[in-house]
Amino acid sequence: MDFTINQIALLMGGLVEGDGDTLVNTIGAIETANKGSITFYSNKKYESYLYTTKASGIIINKNLKLNKVVKSVLIRVDDPYLGFTTLLETYEKLLSFKKVGIETPTFIDKTAVYGNDLYLGAFAYLGENVKIGENVKIYPNVYIGDGSIVGDNCILHPGVKIYANTQIGNYCTLHAGCIIGSDGFGYALQEDGSYKKIPQLGKVILEDHVDIGANTVVDCATFDATIIRKGVKLDNMVQIGHNVEIGEHTVIAAQTGIAGSTKIGNNCIIGGQVGIAGHLHIGNKTQIQAQSGVSKNTEEGHIIYGTPAIDYRNYLRSYTIYRKLPEVMKQIEILEQKLLNL
Amino acid sequence: MDFTINQIALLMGGLVEGDGDTLVNTIGAIETANKGSITFYSNKKYESYLYTTKASGIIINKNLKLNKVVKSVLIRVDDPYLGFTTLLETYEKLLSFKKVGIETPTFIDKTAVYGNDLYLGAFAYLGENVKIGENVKIYPNVYIGDGSIVGDNCILHPGVKIYANTQIGNYCTLHAGCIIGSDGFGYALQEDGSYKKIPQLGKVILEDHVDIGANTVVDCATFDATIIRKGVKLDNMVQIGHNVEIGEHTVIAAQTGIAGSTKIGNNCIIGGQVGIAGHLHIGNKTQIQAQSGVSKNTEEGHIIYGTPAIDYRNYLRSYTIYRKLPEVMKQIEILEQKLLNL
Amino acid sequence: MDFTINQIALLMGGLVEGDGDTLVNTIGAIETANKGSITFYSNKKYESYLYTTKASGIIINKNLKLNKVVKSVLIRVDDPYLGFTTLLETYEKLLSFKKVGIETPTFIDKTAVYGNDLYLGAFAYLGENVKIGENVKIYPNVYIGDGSIVGDNCILHPGVKIYANTQIGNYCTLHAGCIIGSDGFGYALQEDGSYKKIPQLGKVILEDHVDIGANTVVDCATFDATIIRKGVKLDNMVQIGHNVEIGEHTVIAAQTGIAGSTKIGNNCIIGGQVGIAGHLHIGNKTQIQAQSGVSKNTEEGHIIYGTPAIDYRNYLRSYTIYRKLPEVMKQIEILEQKLLNL
Repeated sequence: MDFTINQIALLMGGLVEGDGDTLVNTIGAIETANKGSITFYSNKKYESYLYTTKASGIIINKNLKLNKVVKSVLIRVDDPYLGFTTLLETYEKLLSFKKVGIETPTFIDKTAVYGNDLYLGAFAYLGENVKIGENVKIYPNVYIGDGSIVGDNCILHPGVKIYANTQIGNYCTLHAGCIIGSDGFGYALQEDGSYKKIPQLGKVILEDHVDIGANTVVDCATFDATIIRKGVKLDNMVQIGHNVEIGEHTVIAAQTGIAGSTKIGNNCIIGGQVGIAGHLHIGNKTQIQAQSGVSKNTEEGHIIYGTPAIDYRNYLRSYTIYRKLPEVMKQIEILEQKLLNL
Repeated sequence: MDFTINQIALLMGGLVEGDGDTLVNTIGAIETANKGSITFYSNKKYESYLYTTKASGIIINKNLKLNKVVKSVLIRVDDPYLGFTTLLETYEKLLSFKKVGIETPTFIDKTAVYGNDLYLGAFAYLGENVKIGENVKIYPNVYIGDGSIVGDNCILHPGVKIYANTQIGNYCTLHAGCIIGSDGFGYALQEDGSYKKIPQLGKVILEDHVDIGANTVVDCATFDATIIRKGVKLDNMVQIGHNVEIGEHTVIAAQTGIAGSTKIGNNCIIGGQVGIAGHLHIGNKTQIQAQSGVSKNTEEGHIIYGTPAIDYRNYLRSYTIYRKLPEVMKQIEILEQKLLNL
Repeated sequence: MDFTINQIALLMGGLVEGDGDTLVNTIGAIETANKGSITFYSNKKYESYLYTTKASGIIINKNLKLNKVVKSVLIRVDDPYLGFTTLLETYEKLLSFKKVGIETPTFIDKTAVYGNDLYLGAFAYLGENVKIGENVKIYPNVYIGDGSIVGDNCILHPGVKIYANTQIGNYCTLHAGCIIGSDGFGYALQEDGSYKKIPQLGKVILEDHVDIGANTVVDCATFDATIIRKGVKLDNMVQIGHNVEIGEHTVIAAQTGIAGSTKIGNNCIIGGQVGIAGHLHIGNKTQIQAQSGVSKNTEEGHIIYGTPAIDYRNYLRSYTIYRKLPEVMKQIEILEQKLLNL
């Protein structure tokens, strides 16, 4: 598909500098884009590429002053990154062939119901009393257990597994291989050293606009519910223990694990490979640096780091000295020697 | 389903205080339970809820002295938590519709055999010479490779993948998406910098009463077997390398990884996100704190922490000072200054 | 299958000491092997087993001097480990029944094409315009999305999920449950605190001889491609973010995560549970110790450790002192006291 720079500028209300009839047919990064690409510039780090890129078009800030000649056609907008995102969204809509219909074979229990515009891929499974909303796309090899509910406009990518009695809201996207509703890790130690399983009878609730990454696991509650609130985004291979609750618009990067019964606040930003112990309260707007190990409650808005996690800046201050510990030891030895020599 | 408090007390041999005919129909946590719920109290942290909970019934210790009036009906037992677990188990049995039968379509090789009371979900696969015991529940999209054996009373949740020649004992539960028998990560470095695969010809043995978490991976041995002994419980997304052996009744929390050929003792407790290097011996009853990195053998009963992991209390003592390192540096500077001024 | 020691010696050009007609029928480790096994000896740590092993045959170095009588028949070669690997490979070829043919049911879109000697397991899915090369083995429950290409001689184990438009080279092995092409974790923060998804329109390219571990996830690029170069080996549950590039013959151990847009050089060795931040350049031949957290670019050939990762030896030097921090504090207090007493 070819577009003119003028067409693209129109899309984002931008002003064209250069030949607006120039054709582009793909999207690229400013440092690697070739002729026929449209790109954007918003980060000073990439400034030199402005003057060397082979991209046919660049989306830039309306007020940006140029120091040299730029060969590409420019589209000037208020926010180049936002403009570029708008372009990506439009491109996605043009590209995406909206799948509709039921492939063969599938397994649909006679008590399962579903709305209009369903796509149900081959080898997908809808158990007893499953309810699927409008315009839901269920890819091949997805399993939805008895009594589970999926809201409107959801996408379940290939191989998603939903245990029985799960509740999924509207506009949720679940990536391939994620597991919703597996048993919590609850065992009671017996006198002979063996462990007896504590039945896990609760469920999982995903509210609206929740995204779940590939191969992520959300355990069901022991009783009651594990709850992922509105707008939460989980990256790949995240582990959510039983009875956890994650507040609205919190984002969690890949490979992080949250132990049972911990409550995470709203609008938190949690890095990758973080571990959070069980039964904690993490305040709203907490930021947790990657690989931290959190063992205590946190107050609203704190930024923490380390294992066990402490204030972010304090951790780095201590680490700066940690790196110099051999020199510090020498300082102490010199002091000792000087004292001896007195 | 409605039950009277008297019926529930009977179940756990408890003594009722209050109106035993009070009806309950669900199970709750003491801090959030509503009318119609039964809950329990065993942790002092939740004492205040004893007097404020809306639960219709509370299971408490037979000797507990109350300081205020409790509005709920009480069931007094020796061990409230054990009593509550008994209740959960009974509730689970009442709720669970025992699936039996073979759905359509499935793939069953003509040489595969299975016992009575099998449930085989749609899109499940039994390869050549597969042997399945009595009363096994195999959910949709499960794959069992050629020559594998599954004992009696096992549950394989949706999407479990068992490679060829795996041996699974009795009373094992495998959660959705777990992989048993994938190749160990064994490569030989070649002179040109490339890697040549070392064939992984061994198998995996799971003994009786082993539970495997969702999306956990257990690699097969290079030759011989990777062995998970009786009563071991693995949480979600745990990684078990080739030729590893895990002793009886050891429990391992989510996202922990154990590298090749390491032998873990019996009755160990291993936290989440722990890494254990290859070719180590971890003694019986070792406890490893979450996120630790273990690079040395451990003696029986030790508790360790940190990366590289050292004695738990020593790690925390050092960390207490780590947090104050900037102040320690100031102390040293003051000392230097004082010496200079002498 | 029984073989004589003479037959095995022939395979690896070795010289037999003892009765070359001795029969063996399995492969074992020197410390646990029984009668009828062939094993090897190359690591001094296992020297005592040379004289006590029950193995019928041992592959050893041609120049090794023995201090005691060895009861097993010996095969003397240049490199015992290499000889043993050759044996494993031959054994694998003899054991492996090469699967060919298409099981029932499968889903093959009418526009999908494939080469000779295909194995397509039951419940596998080939989408629109999928192209599969020669001699490819696709196990049950594998999903290959629209427009994806798989080269010659690849093995896709059960439950692999390939998103649309993925490109896979020749001689690649993908283990069970791995996900290729899921959306990158890209969201734009909105003024109301919610997040808006940035469309992920790029793809994933796996070059030749790439191995992907069980339940590993490789995200697609935002635009352009996430690239895994020739000969890269990824272990289980590794997370590769969007727009990452991994250089030739780099190996990455289990549970490591690499954030978006980072470029990893050639011939790197990356341990397990490592985290690498986004937008970094990791030089060729970098070695990263297990559980490290990398937040800065690295130069060619460096060995790093810790969170944040620093030079490996410096980290260990500092850690040695870290372990003694309580004693160091005492040293400082004694100094202070001595100064006071002056």
